[in-house]
Amino acid sequence: MLQKANVTRIRAWLEKINTFNSTPGAGTTRVLFTKEELASRAYIKEEMNKLGLEVSEDAIGNLFGVLRGKNRKFAPVWTGSHIDTVLNAGMFDGMAGIVSGMEALRLIKESGIVFKRDLAVVVYTSEEPTRFGLSCLGSRAMAGELTLEDTRSIRDEEGNSLYEVLGTLGYDYKEFAAVKREKGDVYAAVELHIEQNLHLDKEGIPIGIVKGICAPTIYEVTINGCQSHAGGTSMGDRHDAFTAASELTLVLEKLARESKGTYVTGTVGKVNVLPNAVNVIPGEVHMSIDIRSIDVESKKMVLNKLFTEKERIESERGVIISLDLENDDIPLKCDENIIRILKNNCENLGITYMDLISGPYHDSLFVGRFAKTAMLFVPSKNGISHSKEEWTDFEDIALGTDVLAHTLLELANKDN
Amino acid sequence: MLQKANVTRIRAWLEKINTFNSTPGAGTTRVLFTKEELASRAYIKEEMNKLGLEVSEDAIGNLFGVLRGKNRKFAPVWTGSHIDTVLNAGMFDGMAGIVSGMEALRLIKESGIVFKRDLAVVVYTSEEPTRFGLSCLGSRAMAGELTLEDTRSIRDEEGNSLYEVLGTLGYDYKEFAAVKREKGDVYAAVELHIEQNLHLDKEGIPIGIVKGICAPTIYEVTINGCQSHAGGTSMGDRHDAFTAASELTLVLEKLARESKGTYVTGTVGKVNVLPNAVNVIPGEVHMSIDIRSIDVESKKMVLNKLFTEKERIESERGVIISLDLENDDIPLKCDENIIRILKNNCENLGITYMDLISGPYHDSLFVGRFAKTAMLFVPSKNGISHSKEEWTDFEDIALGTDVLAHTLLELANKDN
Repeated sequence: MLQKANVTRIRAWLEKINTFNSTPGAGTTRVLFTKEELASRAYIKEEMNKLGLEVSEDAIGNLFGVLRGKNRKFAPVWTGSHIDTVLNAGMFDGMAGIVSGMEALRLIKESGIVFKRDLAVVVYTSEEPTRFGLSCLGSRAMAGELTLEDTRSIRDEEGNSLYEVLGTLGYDYKEFAAVKREKGDVYAAVELHIEQNLHLDKEGIPIGIVKGICAPTIYEVTINGCQSHAGGTSMGDRHDAFTAASELTLVLEKLARESKGTYVTGTVGKVNVLPNAVNVIPGEVHMSIDIRSIDVESKKMVLNKLFTEKERIESERGVIISLDLENDDIPLKCDENIIRILKNNCENLGITYMDLISGPYHDSLFVGRFAKTAMLFVPSKNGISHSKEEWTDFEDIALGTDVLAHTLLELANKDN
Repeated sequence: MLQKANVTRIRAWLEKINTFNSTPGAGTTRVLFTKEELASRAYIKEEMNKLGLEVSEDAIGNLFGVLRGKNRKFAPVWTGSHIDTVLNAGMFDGMAGIVSGMEALRLIKESGIVFKRDLAVVVYTSEEPTRFGLSCLGSRAMAGELTLEDTRSIRDEEGNSLYEVLGTLGYDYKEFAAVKREKGDVYAAVELHIEQNLHLDKEGIPIGIVKGICAPTIYEVTINGCQSHAGGTSMGDRHDAFTAASELTLVLEKLARESKGTYVTGTVGKVNVLPNAVNVIPGEVHMSIDIRSIDVESKKMVLNKLFTEKERIESERGVIISLDLENDDIPLKCDENIIRILKNNCENLGITYMDLISGPYHDSLFVGRFAKTAMLFVPSKNGISHSKEEWTDFEDIALGTDVLAHTLLELANKDN
């Protein structure tokens, strides 16, 4: 019998990790391979060691804490998430999954129950695109979708390539090929994460069982209009790049709203206006478009309509809009067997749950390429995330950890 | 009889002034009291001296080149414009008026014709708001709308106050009171400027006679929404500060377009989105709103409707929109007598002209507070300005200079 997860321990871990922060007072910022992120890695290794886990890192910095099962010829079971953040974020996104994984393995170890497969907590490298503009670096490399060669052309804003940064930190290029996992290398993977939406909070339900993970299609948009004087140019003579950007943004919002049956989101999160002066009509706008869905077809439909509208805006406003595809990942349907086990465990533990789909991107999307994968969500207060207002009650993480621990133990004893 | 303006000389002056540029290759940038702007002042003083003008500067850096009339008891006649630019601008906005003024005074001096009133070319300090966020510093101070006390609270992006900057450059605070001009101190003022709109270019007419100058009402807008994860937050649960900003921008555009009978422009030129990340719904947007008209009532009507729409957007989107009034200047109707003289001179010289109103802001707006004031425009290629694409043919500036020279001479001999 497993003990209940320890709320105090979960809270202490989260609060300690949260001290590794480059923007104290303005939310939490912990960017890949910065001083703060490296310090948080060191701390987690230390805590894994204290738990009696075998600690290792692969050639892209994915960090493993392994609790040995009795038979190493079986593929392991993984849980895990990430410790990096976007700018001015919260203390739960990613970290909840690391801490619940460590606590689950502690519960299993301390129960003395024998299990077959190795169990590992994995800290995936840079789930957020904050530093290199590309998300899920670690899990993407595991899925074979980011090669050592690719790391040469991925650069941060200061122009450093991921390749150079890995070399500087002492990661071994020769080991990079071993980062990639084949089907069968990992038996199953379960990630606990905060919901980042308000379904659980609104319904008052502590656990969400994730049916699928949306994948983003991201475009870099450049709008070229005609820069001119704000007072001197009559309204009818303008080719204002920013009013065109505004129209495209509202069109995207409308299209995403209208297809709500299949859950599509459309977001313009990044906008830079040139020359950005009060009395100058913008001549150029750079912005991002992020479209997500669990359903490839719904995404395509929104995109097709968006391209039609883009052409209308171009011709009506006399501007040129370029959409460059930056990223186009395929959504994941979660493994039905693991979902069944998760639900059984909720029922056995007397914990209510609901089905959800994950709008955000997670490492599980890529882990799902080579292993049976599922996720469980815990509530986000008011649905807010990627913000210093992000909050999840420690008690809810503990409930999720209980479900996770039972599920991992069950999976670790499965034959196939 | 006055000689014709010399195109080669006008071109040489403009090209030389254009070498004082902090962004060579990316348009012209000459910001108040930077190395480049100070060098261009020195050059203009030198050229004024060569022309035999008496050179002086007041306590805010307004620069005067005076050609003495035969009777100093009469108030002088001014012409002039500015030499500072917005970022990445062109070589004509402002400079055309300085160069045509110097050439006009040269023509008058060399003609040997006797005239009564002093004639001055004035280089007004910082017409553009580039450095201190407020336009027309020099002429505004002349109008008594910028006091020495005010200069303490006007700061550039590095936090330097205009007061400190003036002190560092050796301007005498004790002389600041003398910057202000009373009604009667200046008999008349005529400014030549590029049109910054495409009426003249489209019609193929070389001279525009300005009936009035629009004045901008500028708001600093802050939109507070709710920052959250781009994938995690359903479309219906969002309080996206940027879609709200887009809607407000399009509303402003629509209102300005609809009131085209009275010429209103509405521009959002400056936009900053927070946190400005691809996968984060913007929680905050800062932007500028610039509304101009020659007619105070039309402006008020647009503003009233804008405020109603703002409230609708706030309640529909669950965001808070704050509009802080930054600037609210009163439009100017140009002096009918000077307009008549300008038109007569066009006719005498066989130069076609058309009536225009000035959308952009000029120093003449403030000079008009204490002197009879008028403006003449020369064509802007494709109406483009505040851009490196800004262009005016040197021949057109020469034609404008001919009209200006005859007009200044006539005004300089008027009794009252």
